[in-house]
Amino acid sequence: LDAIGDWWSLLIVYEAFRGLCRFGEFQRTLGCPKNILTVRLRTLVGLGVLAIAPASDGSAYQEYVLTEKGRALFPVIVALRQWGEDHLFGLDPGETVLIDRKGGRPVRRLELRSEDGRLLGPGDTVVKHRNAHG
Amino acid sequence: LDAIGDWWSLLIVYEAFRGLCRFGEFQRTLGCPKNILTVRLRTLVGLGVLAIAPASDGSAYQEYVLTEKGRALFPVIVALRQWGEDHLFGLDPGETVLIDRKGGRPVRRLELRSEDGRLLGPGDTVVKHRNAHG
Repeated sequence: LDAIGDWWSLLIVYEAFRGLCRFGEFQRTLGCPKNILTVRLRTLVGLGVLAIAPASDGSAYQEYVLTEKGRALFPVIVALRQWGEDHLFGLDPGETVLIDRKGGRPVRRLELRSEDGRLLGPGDTVVKHRNAHG
Repeated sequence: LDAIGDWWSLLIVYEAFRGLCRFGEFQRTLGCPKNILTVRLRTLVGLGVLAIAPASDGSAYQEYVLTEKGRALFPVIVALRQWGEDHLFGLDPGETVLIDRKGGRPVRRLELRSEDGRLLGPGDTVVKHRNAHG
């Protein structure tokens, strides 16, 4: 449960995908008290979602960069953004859109599909123990 | 930012998709102090993600059920689960698997694709203001 609790730090990861990497940037954008932000960043580093790197401009600042494990949260962040676009009118996600760099067009919706390609909703799935499955 | 802050309550939504609906069930499963859980549930109801319903068994208990807006968080929850399956070994998500009820097989991975079907990673996308796009 502790590790799941750290999912609450998803907002920091969201901002990291947007390109934020410095303590002060996270603090200004999230409006988060310094002590709380410090703990959350430390936890994300401890989880291996963020790593600490020297400043890319050669200054004395530390930067927080997404690791491979952190970058694997991309579908989570996109799913949150798409939900926000539909349901949180007036917030930033409603006023921006995620674009495919190459084609210049909005990306597709994330959709859950079965092995044979059927679109699946919440009622179409069930959680099973691995052993029960095979 | 307040509404985004409420995304921290995603864990409650995760459990609601698993079928939990009563205060005591959320409390036992999440190990969350009662006063904090009360505030989070109230916030989710205020956001329109959960609704309060009379107990399905006719008892005096209230139940918290996902609204349509809440059920629209399904891709977010699936994305979190799939990330957990890959990266949080030893936790519950690592020991269970999401199954397609009809086919009885594990579901596909969520993947972000462009309008013309190319697989997209974090570096392949950019956030633009709606006005700049169209």
